[in-house]
Amino acid sequence: MKTVDFYFDFGSPAAYLAWTQLPALCRQAGAELVYKPMLLGGVFKAIGNHSPAQIPAKGKYIRQDFERFAGRYGVPLIYNAHFPVNTLQLMRGAVAMQQMDGGAQFDAYCRAIFEAMWVHDKKLVDAAVVGEVLQDAGLDAQALLAQVGDAAIKQRLIELTEEAVARGVFGAPTFFVGDAMFWGQDRLDFVHEALLRA
Amino acid sequence: MKTVDFYFDFGSPAAYLAWTQLPALCRQAGAELVYKPMLLGGVFKAIGNHSPAQIPAKGKYIRQDFERFAGRYGVPLIYNAHFPVNTLQLMRGAVAMQQMDGGAQFDAYCRAIFEAMWVHDKKLVDAAVVGEVLQDAGLDAQALLAQVGDAAIKQRLIELTEEAVARGVFGAPTFFVGDAMFWGQDRLDFVHEALLRA
Repeated sequence: MKTVDFYFDFGSPAAYLAWTQLPALCRQAGAELVYKPMLLGGVFKAIGNHSPAQIPAKGKYIRQDFERFAGRYGVPLIYNAHFPVNTLQLMRGAVAMQQMDGGAQFDAYCRAIFEAMWVHDKKLVDAAVVGEVLQDAGLDAQALLAQVGDAAIKQRLIELTEEAVARGVFGAPTFFVGDAMFWGQDRLDFVHEALLRA
Repeated sequence: MKTVDFYFDFGSPAAYLAWTQLPALCRQAGAELVYKPMLLGGVFKAIGNHSPAQIPAKGKYIRQDFERFAGRYGVPLIYNAHFPVNTLQLMRGAVAMQQMDGGAQFDAYCRAIFEAMWVHDKKLVDAAVVGEVLQDAGLDAQALLAQVGDAAIKQRLIELTEEAVARGVFGAPTFFVGDAMFWGQDRLDFVHEALLRA
């Protein structure tokens, strides 16, 4: 079966925008969407890259750019007031959710966190706020919080981040269709074309 | 009349790709294409930005990305073996060409330099090579070389680069439709939409 590997971090507005489009894109192309949580800050550190927001002129522009794409996609986007957010616990949570109950609640977790960050403007470095968000989404916050401190979960996120770097990832979101790599939510049209050829 | 301000540097493969598309795009939209030579290295220095090629993983990827767009556009692209190229003299030449003979030879100069750089893989830091390129294009290389050392031409390129920075430019190519700024050859669709609304 065709697959799209989707390397993401909840702290990236571009990853959020991609996430709003990818499930339908994959469904229409008959492809499986393979979620690959990674720690974007870890990728940046490994390769000497940094957030585009560190250049003020670029940071200002890319907000407009993301808003233009949100408009094109017809999806809400509120630039998180607490950006940039340390997403370590959130990404460990994603890894934990992939393993709990065979991943049954993973999609709901991604929706809850992505929307809390980029639609509802929540302060997600605050564990109490994350707990509320998960509870509102009908997820078992207690079970998850017990998991994110687990050494195996921490190690798995490190491995996924190293895997991303080894495959050439330098930013988020990044997609792979086979060996072909595509960076940025603005390359979904190329991902679509690659799936048609796959 | 509607206008598109096109801030460019011959050393940017993305600016070359944009240049292959912009004249037709503007013609179809009934817009005037206003060429704005700038020194991209000067922009980077002014705002603390740097070439994406400085991050090896990103440099490797963007070559593929540019090749994908060249394929989509149906235009040739050979990644210049001497990249990154110091374009100071070439950009001063562009400024000089805008002023010589009321700009009559400016379009021919841009074509000659862009194609020498990104199609014919010429070593354009070599003044003798530039002279040959201009001669092959039927341009008066001697008259131009006399101009690029002129203090007023040097000053005009500095002013255009400062103007770009003042308007928020942080990379190349950058387009303006009115006050709306668009960065990257991959945003020509948004430029097109902005012209339809203008």
